[in-house]
Parts: sequence; structure tokens; C-alpha cells
Amino acid sequence: MSAPRVAAPERGLGLGPEPGSSTQTSHRLLAYSDALLSIIATVMILPVAHTKIHPDQKLGESVQQLLLAKIAVYLMTFLIVTVAWAAHVRLFQVIEHIDDVLALLNLACMMIITFLPYTFSLMASFPGVPFGIFLFSVCAVVIGLIQAVIVAYGFYHPHLLNQQIQESENQDFYKRHILKIILRGPVLCFLAAIFSFFFIPLSYVLLGLVIVFPHLTRLITWCKTKVLGQRSEEEEHHSMETFSFYLSEPLSKERVEAFSDGVYAIVATLLILDICEDNVPDPREVEEKFHSSLLEALSEYGPNYLAYFGSFVTIGLLWFVHHSLFLYVTKATRLMGLLNILSLAFIGGLPLAYQLTSEFAEKSHNEIEAIQVSCVITFFASIFQFAIWTTALLNEEETLHAFARYGGKEHAFMFAKLALYPCVSLGAFFLTCLLSEFSTAIFHLMQIVIPFAFLALRIFVRISLTAMK
Amino acid sequence: MSAPRVAAPERGLGLGPEPGSSTQTSHRLLAYSDALLSIIATVMILPVAHTKIHPDQKLGESVQQLLLAKIAVYLMTFLIVTVAWAAHVRLFQVIEHIDDVLALLNLACMMIITFLPYTFSLMASFPGVPFGIFLFSVCAVVIGLIQAVIVAYGFYHPHLLNQQIQESENQDFYKRHILKIILRGPVLCFLAAIFSFFFIPLSYVLLGLVIVFPHLTRLITWCKTKVLGQRSEEEEHHSMETFSFYLSEPLSKERVEAFSDGVYAIVATLLILDICEDNVPDPREVEEKFHSSLLEALSEYGPNYLAYFGSFVTIGLLWFVHHSLFLYVTKATRLMGLLNILSLAFIGGLPLAYQLTSEFAEKSHNEIEAIQVSCVITFFASIFQFAIWTTALLNEEETLHAFARYGGKEHAFMFAKLALYPCVSLGAFFLTCLLSEFSTAIFHLMQIVIPFAFLALRIFVRISLTAMK
Repeated sequence: MSAPRVAAPERGLGLGPEPGSSTQTSHRLLAYSDALLSIIATVMILPVAHTKIHPDQKLGESVQQLLLAKIAVYLMTFLIVTVAWAAHVRLFQVIEHIDDVLALLNLACMMIITFLPYTFSLMASFPGVPFGIFLFSVCAVVIGLIQAVIVAYGFYHPHLLNQQIQESENQDFYKRHILKIILRGPVLCFLAAIFSFFFIPLSYVLLGLVIVFPHLTRLITWCKTKVLGQRSEEEEHHSMETFSFYLSEPLSKERVEAFSDGVYAIVATLLILDICEDNVPDPREVEEKFHSSLLEALSEYGPNYLAYFGSFVTIGLLWFVHHSLFLYVTKATRLMGLLNILSLAFIGGLPLAYQLTSEFAEKSHNEIEAIQVSCVITFFASIFQFAIWTTALLNEEETLHAFARYGGKEHAFMFAKLALYPCVSLGAFFLTCLLSEFSTAIFHLMQIVIPFAFLALRIFVRISLTAMK
Repeated sequence: MSAPRVAAPERGLGLGPEPGSSTQTSHRLLAYSDALLSIIATVMILPVAHTKIHPDQKLGESVQQLLLAKIAVYLMTFLIVTVAWAAHVRLFQVIEHIDDVLALLNLACMMIITFLPYTFSLMASFPGVPFGIFLFSVCAVVIGLIQAVIVAYGFYHPHLLNQQIQESENQDFYKRHILKIILRGPVLCFLAAIFSFFFIPLSYVLLGLVIVFPHLTRLITWCKTKVLGQRSEEEEHHSMETFSFYLSEPLSKERVEAFSDGVYAIVATLLILDICEDNVPDPREVEEKFHSSLLEALSEYGPNYLAYFGSFVTIGLLWFVHHSLFLYVTKATRLMGLLNILSLAFIGGLPLAYQLTSEFAEKSHNEIEAIQVSCVITFFASIFQFAIWTTALLNEEETLHAFARYGGKEHAFMFAKLALYPCVSLGAFFLTCLLSEFSTAIFHLMQIVIPFAFLALRIFVRISLTAMK
């Protein structure tokens, strides 16, 4: 019996086109990198989730004072790591095959990327200390340099490059173009590292430029074209699809899926990590406090279990929606990738929301706020998924499978699937405002009902479609 | 430009063979399940790694008293989760396509599996309390039942099954055979759950049986064949390749890779999770204790960074060896899967070893022991990788690509790659015994030298090969 995947027979050998070389397809290297990067992106939610809030404190105030700063750090590191991930995707769309040297270089690059969240949080904790900014900038410089070495190595061994560039006549143009774009980041960061010892605000401006720069140059080119006419058309002819920084630039769909899977998997298991570590009662304590009754001791942790099940179900179902959506996506664009990352950033916040829900006594003011925060996070995570779908529909001929387009047989069902979570979370939010006494009941009801709603949805859509005919 | 993976164009649609159905390939569902299961398998190393050992305590004693029990729990949960994973692999070698119902059932199954480590550690902490055993058994029963429902659903919609069974005439035989094997576990666990309230030792025997049973039945059949002659040949004719529990039963190579990648990724990042959470100094403390010098404050954490880099490099390179090995493996068998899991179990222990190394003052007795533990763990992790290679060589025609077989052009280099870590870790171990004063220096030297050794190896093997000719 062969392996169950469609792709398996082709990947069986995993070796490159040239039988004489030790070239390999980059599939597994990229999957491993995606797994590492997705874990690193979500890592900074841990300091937020583990912030101890005293039960007597009002959550409203403590949120403002303590959590907000940490949440901002989490969101920023998430975006920074995803920028590094996007650069990595772009890089390995140019380099399609790897050898041992590239594999080792990539591992080195990964190691430095895993240090980005830490150095960033140092920088955020000590915004006025040069050394924090210096460390972060140095990390960014090293990452950029390794990527430049990878590109140079790839062009030195052209059989590693992708088909289009391999066959192209002006390989040198491509090489210079790609190196220029990759080295722009490290140069700016290098300047930031130097200026950190003289004039810190300038460092921050330079670091900000790294992210804005590609979009800025695109804007300038666009303005130029508007003012000077169609001059830049021949330039664009020379330019390539990758490294164009267009919003319609194609993004490897497999890597978007792999990165998202990594985030969903680590977020789903973050709470069980805590439960495994903290919620195994001490045998001595059970004997003294609970008269040797394990059941009684465990019932203390009841809210934690409920929070775990709630977060696992929500994340599992959001993954399910994501999976259904990308099944019908035939080409992912940069805009869709961006919306996906925004959705993932909110999903990373879910463990925090559920931990808050489990920590507060029932019917307290804090609990309602915690539940409302959960609803808001769920709403944004799911509405961005919906936005991916809307974006895909705008250019459906290119990006969507025929089944999911307007009038396709799965269109209505897809719409219903994607609309379910935004509607339910919005509904739950307003219900908790109106019926604040029953907020917990409403919230748990929502969690239990939704899995069944997905099954019911299929039947409902089918019935209404036949009724319409 | 198309996506870089070989597999991408085929997976573009991801839809099943029947255009009328909403059938999907199971590729992404399985990748997500592998990611979840690999994180869950390694989760119980956290309570071990976070065990606080007082610096004054002698590590030798405390290891015996405290760590050993936790390590045993970690190893057992790792093996239990991998048993669940192997069952999952087997299941989805039968079911090749999925639909929405199967995806939701699979998510439910995953959720219960994530509870296995927790319930097991409850059982391990309270070996004499019926409720702990009861919880664990109930989890196992529910998992088995969900898997049985998945099989029943698959056979009810035969287009979801794999080609071989779909075309087979005695589908009913397959169905009964598979259901019988899957339901054996839950029945034993159900009995264990009931007996936990009457006679606890019997429960443990029953739970142990679940793992041993398939091998026991194989042994009995084997003995029968030996005693009664060739009688069982016709039986085996009826039987199938999957669910045979032969050591040569094929295992989806892609899933072995995906599961291993997950373990390597989470283990590589476990230390950075701790560093991000614990090692950002408090601004107020820096001002008071270190006279506002961030550099001084950070140098306190020096050993932690070193431990992180050490563990990341070691795990990264072990992944690299694994990746190189599986590049030339054309078919994975159950025996290779088993050896792989043993290797992964030791790799899961690496963060613990490195944390120990970073925690003890230099030149203390504890430090040498910590370093020796690291060497031993590295040795076993890499020697099991070597064993996979040896096993593959025993049947090289079937399991290895021509390049890696005896006399193949990559054979010598592969051998050298796989032998590097066992040799170096063994060497470091004995060196620390002899030159105990320099143990730290030896250890760090080993970590720094190895990445370059991999590059040098390629050159060395090539030179010696040409010299031999």
C-alpha cells in the first residue's frame, strides 16, 4: 500500500533534477522552517498569558496598566517574525533546490530569527538604553547577511535556482535586483545600530523604515508613473513577479498553509502545556486538604479544563474554516497572506483570553470583561478569515477553484461557514452586554453549540438551495 | 512563478477524484495532526526541565530522588502518544480522502489525545487512587471509539477509502478486520476503568496489554505456524499489508517526517520559550542592582544564552542528519519508525540536559554530571538514527535509494554524517571523565566544532574516495 498523500510518489526520492549532484528539493527544509517560525511568532503571548493579575484588582485598570504594554510587544514581535517569514518565503521562491551548505546556512538563519522576539522585548522594556536597540539591530543585520549569502550561493550554483531564472538570459540582472532588495534591510539596521549610541530616535525611525521601505518605493514609482506617463512600463517588463512587492504578488500557498498550521497547532496546545505543568496536584496536599479525594482536588481546576476545551474547540474550528477556505484557493497573493497573518495574530491571543476567563470568579465584573475580550478576539480572528475570502472573490478567476466562485456549488456553503464565527461572537458579545448576569452561561453555550452548528449548516444550506430551485 | 514545491501543482485543487462530492485529500489534515501530536508528545519534558534543583544539593542524589520519576513519566507519555500517533497513521493509510465530517471527528480525536499526557501524569502521581486510572482509561476508550466511528464512516462512504480497499471484493472482511483491531484497545481500557475501583493491579495489567497485545497475537500466530505447519498461509493471504503489525509493515514516510519535524521544532524552541519569559530583566532591578547597565544585567544570563545556542545547534544538526537520511529512504517500515521514535524520545530530553548545564556553577561536581548527562542523551539520540540507517541497509533494495546503498556514491558520506555525533559525544564523555577540570571547555568546544565538521566531512570523504581510486 502506498503512502496516502497525492504528493508522495513524486517526493519519494526527493532528489534534484541532476542525477550527478547532491541537490535536494527544499520541501522538508521549508516545512521545518515554517514550524520553527510559527512557534517563534506566537512565543511572546506567554509572558502576557502568565501575567499574574490579583483577583481583587479590577481587570479594567490592570489591563490598561500592565497587559496593554505586553500585548503591544506580542503583536509587534508577531509582525516582525512574519516579516522575516515573508522574506524567507520570497527567498525560497527564487531558490528551489538545496544542498547541504544551503541547509546549514538556513539553520543558522533560523537560529538568529528565534532570537528576534527576545531582543525585541528587551528593546521594548528598555526603550532608552542603546544596548537593547543595538542587539536587535545586530540580529536583523546578521539575518539579512545570511540571506544575502544564500542568494549569492544560489546564483553561483545556478541549478539550485527556479526554472524561470535558470532559463533567463539576464541572470545577472536578477541577482543584482534581489541582492539589492535583501541588503536594503541590513544596511538600514546597521545604521540603526550605530546611531543607537548617539541619537536613539533616529534608530527607531531607521528600524521602522525597514518595514515601510518596499511599500514606499512602490508608492514613489507609482507617483512617478502617474506624473511622467507610461515610462516605467519597460522597467516592469524587466522586473519579475517575485520581489515586486505588489499586493497581487503570488505567495507559495503551501507555505502559507504550513505557517498557519504551525500557529494553530502551538496555540491549541499552549494551554495544555500549562495544565500539564501546573495542575497535577501534589499528593501530600491532596491528603491533607482534600482527605485523599483526588476528585475533590481536581474539581478545583475545573475552570482550567473548561478553558482548555473551549480554546481547543475554538482554535480547532477556526483551523477547520481556514482549511476549508484554502482547499478552494488556487493561488495565494500577498494581500491574502497579509490578511491571514492578521487573523493569526488574533488567534495567538486566544489562549490569553481563555486564561482570563478561567481565572476570575463567576459573576464578578472582571469575568464579563474577560468574556467580552474573548468574543472580540474571536470576532477579529474570524472576520479576517472572511476578508481573505472576499479578497479572493474580487479576482476569482485566478485565485479560486470553480466550485467556490459565484454560482459554484460550494459558494453558499463556504459563505455560511466563514460567516458563522463572526456572527456568533458578535451575538455573544452583545448578549453579554444585555444579559450580564448570564454571560458565563451564554459563553459556554456558544462553545458547545458551534461544532454542531457546522454540521447543521451543511444540511441547512443544502435544503435552502433545493428550496430555491 | 509557481510555488517552489514539486508537489504544488497537483495539490493545487486538493479536491478528491469525484467531482460531484465534497471529498478532499487528507494531506493538510494529517500535517496538522502530526504537528499537534508531536507537541503533545514532548510536553511532559517541561515539568522535568522546570524542576528547581537547589544549587547546594548534590545533583547525583536529587537526580535519583526527583528527576528520575519525572523522566520516567516523560518517557512513558512520549511512548503512549507515539502509540496513538502510530494508530492514527495506520487509520489514515486506510482512509485516503476526507470530508467535513471526518475532519471534525479527527479534531475531536486530537482533543482527547492532548489530554492523555495530563491524565497519565495524574495516574503516575497517584498510582493507588482509582480515579486517576479511571480518567486515563476513559480517555483511551473515547479515542478508540472515535477512531472506530471514523472507520465505520469511511466504509459507509467507500470513495473515501484507499484504492486497494476500494477495488477489493471483500471490503466487509477488511472492515471487520480493522474494526476488530481498533476496538481491542478500548475494550481492554474499558475493563481497566471498571477494575480500577475493585482491584487496581489488574487495571495496570490490562492497560499494559493494550500496547503488548498486537505483538502477543503475532507471537502466538508465529508459534502456531511453527507447531502446526504452514496452515496460516491462506490467512495471511486474506490479511492486508496495513494492520498486520509486521515490523516490515510500511509506514507513511511523509508522516514520519512530519512528526519528526514537529518534535525537532518544538524541542529546538522550548528553551527560547523560557528565555523569552524569564530572562527579560526588570527595569527597576537593572537601575538598582546594575547601575542602569543593561549589558551587566544581561551578562548574568550568559549561561542561559550559551545553553540555548548549544541546544539549538545540536538539535538543528541532528535534524539535518535526519533530513539527509530520509532523503535517501524510499520506504519507511515499522521497525524504522520505532527506532526513529526512540531517537526522538532522547532528543526530547536535550532541553533538560542543556538547562542542567546552564544552571550549575562552573567546575562544581554537579556541572560535570550535567555535561555527562548531555553527552549520553546526544549519544543515544544519534545512535538510534544510525540504527535506522543500519536497518534500512539490511533490506536496501526496497528501502534505500540507489545512491545510498553499498557502493552508491553517497554511501560513504552518509555513513560519516551519521557516525559523527555518536563518536563525538562518546569522545566528549570519556574526555570529561579523564580531564574533569576542563569538562566545560571540552563541551563548548564540541558544540562549536561540529557544524564546521559537517562541512569539512564532505571535503574529507571526497578526497579519501578519490585517493582510494
